[in-house]
Amino acid sequence: MSDPTIRDRILRAVDARFDAQLAFTQEVVRHPSLRTQEGSAQDLLHRAMEQRGLQMDRWQLDPGALAAHPGAGIIDVDYGDVDNVVGTYEPTVEAGRSLILNGHIDVVPTGPEGAWSASPWDARIDGDWLYGRGSGDMKAGLVANLFAFDALFDAGLEPTARIHIQSVVEEECTGNGSLSALQRGYTADAVLIPEPEEDMLVRANVGVIWFRVRVDGAPTHPREMHAGFNAIDAAHSVIGRLRELEEAWNAERGQHRYFEDLDHPINLNLGIVAGGDWASSVPAWCEMDLRIALYPGVTAEDAWEQIEAHLASVTTDEAGNPIRATATRNGFFAQGYVLEEGSDAEAALRASHREVFGSELETFTTPGYLDGRVFTQYGGIPSLVYGPISEAIHGYDERVSIESVRRITKSIALFIADWCGVQESSRS
Amino acid sequence: MSDPTIRDRILRAVDARFDAQLAFTQEVVRHPSLRTQEGSAQDLLHRAMEQRGLQMDRWQLDPGALAAHPGAGIIDVDYGDVDNVVGTYEPTVEAGRSLILNGHIDVVPTGPEGAWSASPWDARIDGDWLYGRGSGDMKAGLVANLFAFDALFDAGLEPTARIHIQSVVEEECTGNGSLSALQRGYTADAVLIPEPEEDMLVRANVGVIWFRVRVDGAPTHPREMHAGFNAIDAAHSVIGRLRELEEAWNAERGQHRYFEDLDHPINLNLGIVAGGDWASSVPAWCEMDLRIALYPGVTAEDAWEQIEAHLASVTTDEAGNPIRATATRNGFFAQGYVLEEGSDAEAALRASHREVFGSELETFTTPGYLDGRVFTQYGGIPSLVYGPISEAIHGYDERVSIESVRRITKSIALFIADWCGVQESSRS
Repeated sequence: MSDPTIRDRILRAVDARFDAQLAFTQEVVRHPSLRTQEGSAQDLLHRAMEQRGLQMDRWQLDPGALAAHPGAGIIDVDYGDVDNVVGTYEPTVEAGRSLILNGHIDVVPTGPEGAWSASPWDARIDGDWLYGRGSGDMKAGLVANLFAFDALFDAGLEPTARIHIQSVVEEECTGNGSLSALQRGYTADAVLIPEPEEDMLVRANVGVIWFRVRVDGAPTHPREMHAGFNAIDAAHSVIGRLRELEEAWNAERGQHRYFEDLDHPINLNLGIVAGGDWASSVPAWCEMDLRIALYPGVTAEDAWEQIEAHLASVTTDEAGNPIRATATRNGFFAQGYVLEEGSDAEAALRASHREVFGSELETFTTPGYLDGRVFTQYGGIPSLVYGPISEAIHGYDERVSIESVRRITKSIALFIADWCGVQESSRS
Repeated sequence: MSDPTIRDRILRAVDARFDAQLAFTQEVVRHPSLRTQEGSAQDLLHRAMEQRGLQMDRWQLDPGALAAHPGAGIIDVDYGDVDNVVGTYEPTVEAGRSLILNGHIDVVPTGPEGAWSASPWDARIDGDWLYGRGSGDMKAGLVANLFAFDALFDAGLEPTARIHIQSVVEEECTGNGSLSALQRGYTADAVLIPEPEEDMLVRANVGVIWFRVRVDGAPTHPREMHAGFNAIDAAHSVIGRLRELEEAWNAERGQHRYFEDLDHPINLNLGIVAGGDWASSVPAWCEMDLRIALYPGVTAEDAWEQIEAHLASVTTDEAGNPIRATATRNGFFAQGYVLEEGSDAEAALRASHREVFGSELETFTTPGYLDGRVFTQYGGIPSLVYGPISEAIHGYDERVSIESVRRITKSIALFIADWCGVQESSRS
């Protein structure tokens, strides 16, 4: 930001509206926007964008169109109530570079609510922390986009480039929300996604595949238990074998730029298990839902081929009993990506970050999935994933640092002003 | 049977009605009398008994009354549609010994139906086998009771002692059906239960406890997977520890009469598993439904105390991570029993078996639960568990040998005649 007066006007505007920003973040957190239940939270976002005079677009995700895309995740839910919301700002004068401010509205399940200190939907504030499922991942960032945008107008300015504010679904399971927005034609010169990244910029991240492994058993009465074959035990044995693949992939990290120094970038997570139907029957089947990571540059197709080949090599358990395990994809089928160094977008964000934080923006590699891959890989758009400090995302007592959110909001606001350009508002 | 003429009349009567018996067995198999869904099958049994002129009694199981009984299983379903059916025959002349002919109508789940050669509810006949869930365990036996009773009347005879024909529920999960019949006041000088026992008499059998083990984890995002604690993995570790207890109990078999020569009488079956709620979250919990056996003479209370103590000793997994596992009973809480040698009831059955099979009745020890314990332990009634040859009970393509059912029916009919006594029918 070359003009310190404009900078200060914007920073003051963020501060002035920050109580309202925090209150609105709490309101969004109070909507349990679990998968396929995002509707009421999207209503809220739609109303908030509409009130700001944005051109509104809301559409239901189209499973058919998505299925035709190589980067789409497998859909095993009904998209009947699954909508994206996008508000578009069209500048009166077009001078700067266009921008997508993206965030996801969907949140992961809470686990047993009793394990939380308070309800995951309370949006309780304690000291610097705002608690709640989705507080960090990523409702604070989603709302920060909106209030950073507001700050320019509050400061008597208006951006001079097109801006799309996106509230997307399906980031936690398929990435189909951002993909559907891309398929709908939304594109720009850069995208910014304020995921909870500890005030840092993501340089590289992994792709993710979701799959279900089913292992069949041979049910019997427990009076002849050893004549049967326990599918639940066999499933555990299969996981042991899949962890060989996980370790083999981790051992290759030295060959993957930006992953060399990570301890364990490839995590195979056994997230869900279900098997058997009767305590007194040797179980006939066991199904496990798994998530595995892949390096940027490894296609999901390649990784999947390796998974299938490895599973096919599992033909017996430790005791030599034959095992039949089959794998089916049931969500993410996504490649990782690298934010190439030296982009103008990164330079602009570095400058904004320095203004607010008084220090250089750090970059890092994260072993998690990011929707940035949609824009980078399929839109050729540089993706800046950059957001606040959080704790316990996907865990109990998920929380986000309120002061971090304030600083990130300021940094985003300065970035918008720099990237899109601003002029004195004709409205004021 | 001292009178060979009467014997032959009875045996011929079983043969004469055997096609009808088989057809009715098929009809009963076609009713999927899974737990809490026994109603339509009980309607059928009620009608069949009523048509035979029995005094009918049908009642809903009373959870409150059952809960007060030390041998009751924990009830975690709604008993709203869960009824027992008993038909009582009162003799015109009371001369012999009274008898309960008991069988259970409930069946265990089928597992994936596609793994069956045909629908589990088809009651298909192929050669000597009648297929279907519950065909062996124990609808063939339940119907055999009824047709053995018929044979006496068809032979122009009538029993000279009270007979209760019982169709009970809940044998596969709690034993509360037979227990409720006992609580209702049904008692007799002997009980016969034609469970699928390979044409043999059960000398001894195990008790069974059902319980659920819950293991809690520490959910996180898989990007920081190793900071979390996977409850599904931990659950597997807990099972490993419980199998130590199973092996310790098996090692004690030499001290338990009738169990000395069994390879592995105590089976711990991991029958159901469910854990986690999201592929991309380290799972927060895992629950396992287990079934374990106990020797006769070991009370369920003692066994349960040992299970709880053993679980309490499990405080870490193999890697030293703290584990918290809790156990809750959720079904059977039943002691095993021994059919003491030398009873009059056994002598009578031995004689009947010899007449039909031309060989001595064999006895054996089974590592499975039997409702016989209800009558033996709480009613002081000798329990003859004796029934046909079956294959794959609780498995796919469960089946029962038709010719075995025919012979068992004859043997039961002769036993009734001997035990209860018969006189020439006044009706004919």
